[in-house]
Amino acid sequence: MNRPTLYHCRQARSFRVLWMLEELGLDYELHLLPFPPRVHARGYLAINPLGTIPYYVDDDVRMTESSMICHYLAQRQSRPRLCIDPGEPGYAAYLNFVSYGEATLTFPLAVHLRYTRVEPEERRLPQAAEDYRRFFSGRLRWIEDPLQRNDYLCGERFTAADVSVGYALRLASTLGLEAAYTPAVKAYLARLEARPAFGRAVAAEGGTVGDPF
Amino acid sequence: MNRPTLYHCRQARSFRVLWMLEELGLDYELHLLPFPPRVHARGYLAINPLGTIPYYVDDDVRMTESSMICHYLAQRQSRPRLCIDPGEPGYAAYLNFVSYGEATLTFPLAVHLRYTRVEPEERRLPQAAEDYRRFFSGRLRWIEDPLQRNDYLCGERFTAADVSVGYALRLASTLGLEAAYTPAVKAYLARLEARPAFGRAVAAEGGTVGDPF
Repeated sequence: MNRPTLYHCRQARSFRVLWMLEELGLDYELHLLPFPPRVHARGYLAINPLGTIPYYVDDDVRMTESSMICHYLAQRQSRPRLCIDPGEPGYAAYLNFVSYGEATLTFPLAVHLRYTRVEPEERRLPQAAEDYRRFFSGRLRWIEDPLQRNDYLCGERFTAADVSVGYALRLASTLGLEAAYTPAVKAYLARLEARPAFGRAVAAEGGTVGDPF
Repeated sequence: MNRPTLYHCRQARSFRVLWMLEELGLDYELHLLPFPPRVHARGYLAINPLGTIPYYVDDDVRMTESSMICHYLAQRQSRPRLCIDPGEPGYAAYLNFVSYGEATLTFPLAVHLRYTRVEPEERRLPQAAEDYRRFFSGRLRWIEDPLQRNDYLCGERFTAADVSVGYALRLASTLGLEAAYTPAVKAYLARLEARPAFGRAVAAEGGTVGDPF
């Protein structure tokens, strides 16, 4: 049987999948690529025609959406149970957080990152970078109330929702945007970064927990 | 029993939820807001602290992520069955498309829309608008192969994946970006727009199927 394979760039959103694989204790094959792979590893387009990461391959499964891969992996394994099931309290909130971490929190950070660091100097757009920094900060309001009440976002336990949102918070923090964080958000991120599986995932990509982007 | 309530802006991503409610034949209460509601309907922040749409309320359920709401609603109803279940062929692809329609296809369109239409003239950014038009076009590659083989994206039937991706395709089309579409994508969008529930959703927001944005 082939091992599941993850194509990943260091500190990119595919980190979610790496972290989840470690949380679940799964065996996997990791391919580290330079960022962005579309530009720096042209041969990658023959593997994933989108040229994006993550690219997750397991038998005939091919997935590209980092938060959804985490949900998918969590659902397939009963111990530890890192998803919330239909019928369990918090299921709707769980699904919402899985999507929110990527679609609402990470995309604005990707715009910010593009126009402050990825594009060459002459193509940088300070206005867009600032617009989407504000966008990100404004959207954090959604997690304040749950984090005032619990250590994790939903279901009173660690789940793929925390991986989805936690990655976005860590990305913003490595980009120097943590001024937007309340004490509850700061404590939550520290709690996630202290998890042994988080540390193993950072080590697997050749980094250390305190690295800036 | 209260009816589920949807807060929605015409033609915005919350259209997905409206469309899904119509596909499922559910009773619902619709609140139409001016876009963006954060700016033009300040009282809305007392209802949804994010000020974003969609906002979906059903008893103690509160959701804000349009594609995930569609998946959630589809899962709760057995007929018509508009999701794919774990264990069914195409489940991983289904989940991936649900996320991809929003996180990969719609967010770049939102950046394009912001910097071509929503911001006042002096804040428009033609470079960002063009960067994210290209981003959108490049990401369409992922649906070409499934649409060459089937009428719908996965599971050989209409599902929430089609609602998620179909909305993005329609948005791009109303923004005048359909030059990026292959014949397979064009035919797929026409097939979706011809669905009676799609027409009912457009009528419910006071529009017609051919409206530009």
